[in-house]
Amino acid sequence: MDLDRALESLLAAAQPLAETQWVDTFEADGRVLAQHLVSALHVPPQDNSSMDGYAVRCADVQTASPTHPVCLPVSQRIAAGHSSQSLQPGTAARIFTGAPLPLGADAVVMQEDVGTETTADGASMVRFSTAPAVGQWVRRAGEDVCRGAQVLAAGTRLGPAELGLAASLGLARLTVCRRPRVALLSTGDELVMPGAVAPEAMPPGAIYNSNRFFLRAMLVRLGCEVTDLGIVPDSRSATVQALADAAHSHDLILTSGGVSVGEEDHIKPAVEHLGGLDLWQIAMKPGKPFAHGHIRRTGGAHGQAHFMGLPGNPVSSFMTFVLLVRPFVLRLQGVTDVACPSQVLPAHFSVVKADKRREFLRVRRNLHGGLDLFSNQSSGVLTSAVWGDGVVDNPAGTTVSHGDAVRYLSFADLLA
Amino acid sequence: MDLDRALESLLAAAQPLAETQWVDTFEADGRVLAQHLVSALHVPPQDNSSMDGYAVRCADVQTASPTHPVCLPVSQRIAAGHSSQSLQPGTAARIFTGAPLPLGADAVVMQEDVGTETTADGASMVRFSTAPAVGQWVRRAGEDVCRGAQVLAAGTRLGPAELGLAASLGLARLTVCRRPRVALLSTGDELVMPGAVAPEAMPPGAIYNSNRFFLRAMLVRLGCEVTDLGIVPDSRSATVQALADAAHSHDLILTSGGVSVGEEDHIKPAVEHLGGLDLWQIAMKPGKPFAHGHIRRTGGAHGQAHFMGLPGNPVSSFMTFVLLVRPFVLRLQGVTDVACPSQVLPAHFSVVKADKRREFLRVRRNLHGGLDLFSNQSSGVLTSAVWGDGVVDNPAGTTVSHGDAVRYLSFADLLA
Repeated sequence: MDLDRALESLLAAAQPLAETQWVDTFEADGRVLAQHLVSALHVPPQDNSSMDGYAVRCADVQTASPTHPVCLPVSQRIAAGHSSQSLQPGTAARIFTGAPLPLGADAVVMQEDVGTETTADGASMVRFSTAPAVGQWVRRAGEDVCRGAQVLAAGTRLGPAELGLAASLGLARLTVCRRPRVALLSTGDELVMPGAVAPEAMPPGAIYNSNRFFLRAMLVRLGCEVTDLGIVPDSRSATVQALADAAHSHDLILTSGGVSVGEEDHIKPAVEHLGGLDLWQIAMKPGKPFAHGHIRRTGGAHGQAHFMGLPGNPVSSFMTFVLLVRPFVLRLQGVTDVACPSQVLPAHFSVVKADKRREFLRVRRNLHGGLDLFSNQSSGVLTSAVWGDGVVDNPAGTTVSHGDAVRYLSFADLLA
Repeated sequence: MDLDRALESLLAAAQPLAETQWVDTFEADGRVLAQHLVSALHVPPQDNSSMDGYAVRCADVQTASPTHPVCLPVSQRIAAGHSSQSLQPGTAARIFTGAPLPLGADAVVMQEDVGTETTADGASMVRFSTAPAVGQWVRRAGEDVCRGAQVLAAGTRLGPAELGLAASLGLARLTVCRRPRVALLSTGDELVMPGAVAPEAMPPGAIYNSNRFFLRAMLVRLGCEVTDLGIVPDSRSATVQALADAAHSHDLILTSGGVSVGEEDHIKPAVEHLGGLDLWQIAMKPGKPFAHGHIRRTGGAHGQAHFMGLPGNPVSSFMTFVLLVRPFVLRLQGVTDVACPSQVLPAHFSVVKADKRREFLRVRRNLHGGLDLFSNQSSGVLTSAVWGDGVVDNPAGTTVSHGDAVRYLSFADLLA
């Protein structure tokens, strides 16, 4: 099974959740907008000054030059957040950054470019030595956002800048998709939870469960509510029971381990019994076995829960998550653009033996603008994903020579 | 003031917080490790199979070929998580992925590569048509991590992969730096909180406060505890009072707006009164005014709080945060490597007029491997930071031609 086709098939099954909720704009980081945001105002709301200085009518100072400066009396003082009167012809207004331009003024002269003096009777005068251009240091009303413009589309994932933009339009609350509810469980008698058994007391064959730790963290980053259902014993009946229970109150059940065709794997028959399952051998490395299916809700509940089974090897689990589960979970929340951006960078390493599968090599950007390869590309431990800051997506059957342009996906993008 | 020098000066002042705390590994995403992590075990703990198949002594099957296969009886069955006995010479062991290799075995043959049969008396036999290489499909004990090896250094910021790695070493809790406590306040009579006044009822000169929304979200992402102190009125006494109060219980006081030298700015004299302040005109665009100082704690409390003042324009505030405050806040938590990684990508735009300041242009990666420029580089609104996915760091006095290699910083990296 080709990875792109697998993703396409998953996304086709990811019907966005219909329920939405209102959240404080302050609390909306990482959530997905459920309706278009249309601006109810101009930004900036009115013409205003982008400098501290003096607002003028250009006509009044058009003859100003260093040899023949023009002096005008200061007729008002306008601070940011305060209102202004019309500018009397033949006068200037003291004005500060962000303050509204008085009616009639058509330019601002920076305070650094003028001279000031006080007349004998105490009046403030300002001296202009150059003629300003119309519009100088003026930010026009609606220059950044026009009233009625759509500023964010439904299906946009909100980050800090989006929250700031929404706030600048006066929006204290936003409608977002509800959080997907994800049940996480691991299978495998060999798994022991950290803390349950000390390293020196680990029985032969036992390994610590690490997948749940990074899977949970990644799901939380993606905006999910995660229920940790623990380690399911390697038995058919325990597996069926755990899955049926989880289906009731979750949108997605995610497992790691137990999806290969070995005699010891109980997930496949259990999910087939409760709904349906496609087991894919995805042509990717690390990754390969991946299961997708559904579990029908019983006992009065309606609908079904999605099921996804990841491989048990940590790096395989990590990579299939970011490449397949991440876009699926985003689409569940209505995100339109779920593709991870990539860039083309030079390999500062070589791969002399082509793999027959599309391979995701753990790499790190170096200070010379290139990518270094982690020496141990084993899928058994996460050291490569800790050392690396991304992966190179290397097509099947392809070697890499030093200097080749390769396709790089950063973990910062994949984990955002 | 040069940006790099400003950063250097800030980092020199950022004494890492001394207090640490224990947190569940499950809850440690985004936190900073306060001590080196040393592995108490080998990963994998013992030699194990990386395939479902049969474990053998290579010597027993070295003559196997398609024309002269070697048949061995199956003497045991080893599932993952279960222990094994020594492999009797002249026999094979049924073995599953992750299961410990029996003593004496030195290779695994994939189940896809063998034939199986059952003898008349019910014994299982397995037929090998090729001779395996020693070590084939065997993951060696300690191959990924050796007992005693340092796997993560103090000062590492923990992400999903780091949590998984720590868990795989049996660590249920981790020592991390305590969260920095940051007080956030805005100044400016022109600011109105979203929700307080409807767009159609906004008084002249008023604008919505948007900076607090993205600053808070970015601080939370960086692991900070954020106290929102609201909008401080544009008066000297109110500003002094707000700052003195905040200094008591916070490590950093962050303001936006009110740091230029205008007559209407009260932050500068207030911080000077309470401690000390450096006001920098940083040679960057957008950004420019940036203040750094300290506020002495009074009334029995000892020490001082850091103070940073960001410009009020949203994009200037956003950019000075990611370039200056972000590394500072990470260093407060003991992060050693606070530099944001960058990469060199081709500009698919041009900048014909060089700016005298180093400029951070809002850009977006396109599907052709290049960068597109946002049309409106105004610092007044966040649309550029919403449309873009990063910035180009364009040196002072530099034009850009289509196709030029430019230095790109992604928001995913800057906001992680």
